[in-house]
Amino acid sequence: MTDYTRFLSPTGRQLTESAIRRMGTVVARTGDMVSFAPGYPDASLFPWQELRDISVELLDGHDANTLQYGPTRGYRPLLETALGVLESRSIAASLEELIVTSGSQQGIDLIARVLVSPGDVVLVELPTFTGAIAAFRNMQAELRGIRLEEDGISLEHLDEVWQQVKREGKTAKILYLIPNFQNPTGSLLGLAKRQRVLEWAEQRDILIVEDDPYGLLYFEDVATEAETRPISADDRNRRVLYLSTVSKMLAPGFRVGWMKAPASLIERFDTAKQSTDLTSGILDQHIVHEALRRGVADRLAPKLRDLYRHKRDVMSKAINARLGSRLSWPTPKGGFFLWATLPDGYTDTGLLERALQHGVVFVVGSAFHVDGSGQNTIRLSFSAPSPERIEEGAKRLAEAFEPASLGL
Amino acid sequence: MTDYTRFLSPTGRQLTESAIRRMGTVVARTGDMVSFAPGYPDASLFPWQELRDISVELLDGHDANTLQYGPTRGYRPLLETALGVLESRSIAASLEELIVTSGSQQGIDLIARVLVSPGDVVLVELPTFTGAIAAFRNMQAELRGIRLEEDGISLEHLDEVWQQVKREGKTAKILYLIPNFQNPTGSLLGLAKRQRVLEWAEQRDILIVEDDPYGLLYFEDVATEAETRPISADDRNRRVLYLSTVSKMLAPGFRVGWMKAPASLIERFDTAKQSTDLTSGILDQHIVHEALRRGVADRLAPKLRDLYRHKRDVMSKAINARLGSRLSWPTPKGGFFLWATLPDGYTDTGLLERALQHGVVFVVGSAFHVDGSGQNTIRLSFSAPSPERIEEGAKRLAEAFEPASLGL
Repeated sequence: MTDYTRFLSPTGRQLTESAIRRMGTVVARTGDMVSFAPGYPDASLFPWQELRDISVELLDGHDANTLQYGPTRGYRPLLETALGVLESRSIAASLEELIVTSGSQQGIDLIARVLVSPGDVVLVELPTFTGAIAAFRNMQAELRGIRLEEDGISLEHLDEVWQQVKREGKTAKILYLIPNFQNPTGSLLGLAKRQRVLEWAEQRDILIVEDDPYGLLYFEDVATEAETRPISADDRNRRVLYLSTVSKMLAPGFRVGWMKAPASLIERFDTAKQSTDLTSGILDQHIVHEALRRGVADRLAPKLRDLYRHKRDVMSKAINARLGSRLSWPTPKGGFFLWATLPDGYTDTGLLERALQHGVVFVVGSAFHVDGSGQNTIRLSFSAPSPERIEEGAKRLAEAFEPASLGL
Repeated sequence: MTDYTRFLSPTGRQLTESAIRRMGTVVARTGDMVSFAPGYPDASLFPWQELRDISVELLDGHDANTLQYGPTRGYRPLLETALGVLESRSIAASLEELIVTSGSQQGIDLIARVLVSPGDVVLVELPTFTGAIAAFRNMQAELRGIRLEEDGISLEHLDEVWQQVKREGKTAKILYLIPNFQNPTGSLLGLAKRQRVLEWAEQRDILIVEDDPYGLLYFEDVATEAETRPISADDRNRRVLYLSTVSKMLAPGFRVGWMKAPASLIERFDTAKQSTDLTSGILDQHIVHEALRRGVADRLAPKLRDLYRHKRDVMSKAINARLGSRLSWPTPKGGFFLWATLPDGYTDTGLLERALQHGVVFVVGSAFHVDGSGQNTIRLSFSAPSPERIEEGAKRLAEAFEPASLGL
């Protein structure tokens, strides 16, 4: 028995792999590769000492709840602390509207499982996060992309696509957005547009899924915290499902995030999560709770903003110096990514092939496009590599552009 | 907008709640309740000191990999250590056949997502684990129960049900089994039957999902390790998907388990897991790896066997003393549970209602039956409460049986 395909469900047959995860595997296999691929946070700012002290206190405490099974909804004190974090982002919520998730990714997955029927349309930004594309596609959603303008999603195109979906007799239930320093483009949705998107969702009876992992990573030379105000903050009619995570603000290894949504939907997500993983990691939830309570994340945030802004500058300068005008990109106002457009005659996959030969890797832009476009774009993450490695990667990227390597 | 049901998918509408999880919520709400409900391990044997030392070393090491995103398949050294654990259970496996899961529950969920099409039949023991019932039902599987005999599943009934399913024109792809100290009955599948089940699966072209959380918790007065030999150990033709977890042998709060399955299916599970939670907790995987590598789990196992055997005795004696012959049960040979049959005139839900009034809680037997039967059974977990609390719970349970409380 070697062929197991007859045992696969339709879902099992059609599973969508995240292009980013695939890149991670490539990188792990290779020795001296400069990785601009996965959007990993910079490990040099993980708060080791604080996390160590917290872990010691928790494990010295011998409180059974620290290592026992716990409620699916989440560790109660963590939920209460998360309410405070939401409040600091101007989002009013109650405990009934909150659930702890195993990272934002599980939030998206629960939403897809509980809300998406096969054939349902989910509206996403063009381009958008590959992890969301995979989660929605794995529930057999049909994804439609909405064009981005300089200040985020095009409201005209949004309604145009909605009308088109309606004409086709299909249902668009969800609009998935990353308003702050979007993955992959780094784009920031304008404040006025946030209000208008919310009104539009109301008018068209659609739910907004607002994914906000990068909201506090604004770069103070070109953006303010006020500009990152979540759509959820003005969501008086409970249209918005808001996803947050500590992956970028403390460390991603904890797999701890949370979702704010209408209470009746949270009950469904809770039930769906029961059979998915029973509960998110309990020790992790305790550690994260203590770290938030003691202000570790708050103290870290300005340092993270400074560090990533610096790295953005290093990457921008290095690539400018090496590649001149062959690559162009809007200046990221926050987050992890530089979203670059290739010159005529280059494709993302063609360049990637040559880049790999020169020891540098990035994610092809087409992976983020649900309509098959984007071959003239690439995503370069400046978050994880050191400034020296960014310089080295830019050098290698330039080599991959050389006519000689074009001929390979 | 208060009614969100119009946004729900068919899956979202039909979500099955785990009866055990619901019980957990009831217990959490009440003050002085003796809980025989959830199968929680005894926290007094969590290896606090070792876990503390390991955590300190890991976090003092400042190795980015300890807190960074990691491969979906799992932390490589943990996978390698898991191969050794499997080998000690006589299971030969290679890395390609292995994936780390967020507890066994995620293993079941991944199997359901990748293999089960709506309407597919999954064969399960009657009764079986509610978490498996929920995971399969949430993929719209049709569950058929196979009767249990003293030495586990009835092979005659198994083939009878399979024939019936075939006559109905449906596909039975999976047989889900807990051969060792089954949840909820504590039953142990006989060695000869294990061989015959495997041959039967071969003949009928069906996959076996073998869930083995309690395998090493055999009680040495009535069982031997040899009797717990996994079906997977003799699985030369790769028919068996084997699930393991550290929840019962170290601590459940880590949410770390693993699945051994054919390599081509592991690839699918990997892809499905990517969009589910990206990766299981990274720090948790590092801690568990170190704990296994240092022999913490191996040293703990005999103590766990002794402790749970003792608690089984305490519960058996206390209930015998208080309730005489009104409750009957087979002596558990391992695991966490005492599976009791009620006398005529009592129902599981009726008794539970009165038990709650008297301050003791258990799980109703009907929750474990996929065919609506089992109202004359209850599951009493002796694993978590202290001997004193077990005595107190038995007293309260006896009060719930009294004629006076029957009249309430």
